[in-house]
Amino acid sequence: MSARMRLAITLGDPAGIGPEIVASLLASREVERAGVDVVVVGDRATLAALPAPLPGASSVVASDVGPIELGRPSAASGAAAARALFRAIELAMAGDVAGVVTAPTSKEAMHLAGHAYPGQTEILIERSGTPRGVMLFVGGGIKVALATRHVALRRVADALDADAIAADLGLLGTALRREFGVAVPRIVVTGLNPHAGEHGLFGDEEARVIGPAVERVRSAGVAVTGPLPADTAFVRLRKGEFDAAFAMYHDQGLIAVKLLAFGFGVNVTIGLPFVRTSPDHGTAYDIAGTNQADDSSLIEAFRLAVDCAKSRGSPPEALRRGLLEP
Amino acid sequence: MSARMRLAITLGDPAGIGPEIVASLLASREVERAGVDVVVVGDRATLAALPAPLPGASSVVASDVGPIELGRPSAASGAAAARALFRAIELAMAGDVAGVVTAPTSKEAMHLAGHAYPGQTEILIERSGTPRGVMLFVGGGIKVALATRHVALRRVADALDADAIAADLGLLGTALRREFGVAVPRIVVTGLNPHAGEHGLFGDEEARVIGPAVERVRSAGVAVTGPLPADTAFVRLRKGEFDAAFAMYHDQGLIAVKLLAFGFGVNVTIGLPFVRTSPDHGTAYDIAGTNQADDSSLIEAFRLAVDCAKSRGSPPEALRRGLLEP
Repeated sequence: MSARMRLAITLGDPAGIGPEIVASLLASREVERAGVDVVVVGDRATLAALPAPLPGASSVVASDVGPIELGRPSAASGAAAARALFRAIELAMAGDVAGVVTAPTSKEAMHLAGHAYPGQTEILIERSGTPRGVMLFVGGGIKVALATRHVALRRVADALDADAIAADLGLLGTALRREFGVAVPRIVVTGLNPHAGEHGLFGDEEARVIGPAVERVRSAGVAVTGPLPADTAFVRLRKGEFDAAFAMYHDQGLIAVKLLAFGFGVNVTIGLPFVRTSPDHGTAYDIAGTNQADDSSLIEAFRLAVDCAKSRGSPPEALRRGLLEP
Repeated sequence: MSARMRLAITLGDPAGIGPEIVASLLASREVERAGVDVVVVGDRATLAALPAPLPGASSVVASDVGPIELGRPSAASGAAAARALFRAIELAMAGDVAGVVTAPTSKEAMHLAGHAYPGQTEILIERSGTPRGVMLFVGGGIKVALATRHVALRRVADALDADAIAADLGLLGTALRREFGVAVPRIVVTGLNPHAGEHGLFGDEEARVIGPAVERVRSAGVAVTGPLPADTAFVRLRKGEFDAAFAMYHDQGLIAVKLLAFGFGVNVTIGLPFVRTSPDHGTAYDIAGTNQADDSSLIEAFRLAVDCAKSRGSPPEALRRGLLEP
């Protein structure tokens, strides 16, 4: 039995750039340098078309979906993407891998294949039986978690809930300690409204929802500041005054991360029983197969998964209990 | 009669940091270097307490409000701030100055003095008889205009209007040409919703309101792109693909500008018959009078006013017509 850490990497949607950026990662020295083993998970045909695996890399066939046309979403590409993700989750839940790095999938292709989820994060949360998960974006030297994800802007205010915010802040604090090695995490919470409502002049969610959630977590021993006006909160986050921001909605958090990470960030799901990271870009169907895809975000996602898994420390339960074949 | 360009600088709220940052600007070489004359506008007592004016700087007494306590908003400080702004607007409307640089005021103090406006921008628009004005923020190498300003987030979606967006985009195009010297302005318009709604999955304002406004302006000959997802729009703006962004609401635009400008940006009102810039920070009552205030944003605002006024080219109408005393 090997004590070497293992990570799964999915190929994502095989009609997109996923397979080529994974191949590019495998051809680099990243895996060797990280000192981990990787398990590449995808459909049989796409796996077979990859360059011969390097030492330390093995593969798992998750599906056999037949021919897939490059460059456009289809039921076949969506099915292959979904099966790869499902299989990677099974490997992680069995303790066979310490974490999962997921290449991009297409919501449209997944829907065509009958998997109607907003995204991979929701599938990971559901299939791992996790009560709640939080999306955390890492890039450009900052970490930003989101209270709401893919919600129309006019629905964001009503989607905020003090219990959910308090629970998510608790998960964020735990993840900062466990996956990121921050002894006493300092979190800044943004307001919903301009100037965080300016004492109720433009909205009352700060006083009615966000503030009470912050108070509850603060009394539970997490160093939380806010709600602060979002535009100044991110400036202070960038200066290093906080370890992470907790933003109220998608654009509020993602504008900051993408700007500082030059468009590339890493998406981390926290709250899962295993590590999960993902590049923060889509399938890029328009350039699939043309060797123009940039693997830098996937490489960042891989590095971060390695760091987080090592920071978690102890190998997965199942591995320690000797349930796994190496 | 002098042909030298003149700019007004208000002291803002005299209980805040306005007077000391204006004094700091006057003590620097900025005014001399810019080759313009400045007219400092404020209340009698605060003007009298400023260091002796440098060559090229004169002053205009806008009020005589009596003693003002430093460090907190009051009816007196609000009245002084309002009167200085009113007087500066009169000077600009008379053609006596080409532009106005406004030091920070306090909404609370203005309200105490009976002036119930959301901010200086609204006063400038109203008192200059301007049909519409747009807030443009400049900093960190980018320019971002806002479709809505101080609106609670839950009201933003309903506050968007295709006619208003089209009109504002027209004003922005004109300002980029006239004040910023961009021959063929390229403007990117952000969506309202995450992923710009992703084809209606999370909101329909892109298809229903923003898109039609963009089409209307595009057919009028302005190079407008969008609506694009905000998080990628700002990355492309920063890369130089566009000359300005037009964002849907306060935090969407301000997070980007403040991050890139390290917290300091310049606020420009476009659509007025004269140039107006302002530092993008508040009165900072907590440090007023302690010589800790940072004048960098005011200096940027002054430089930008000079550049914009010079780019406008011809001196104000009244000056050309010889109506003014030098």
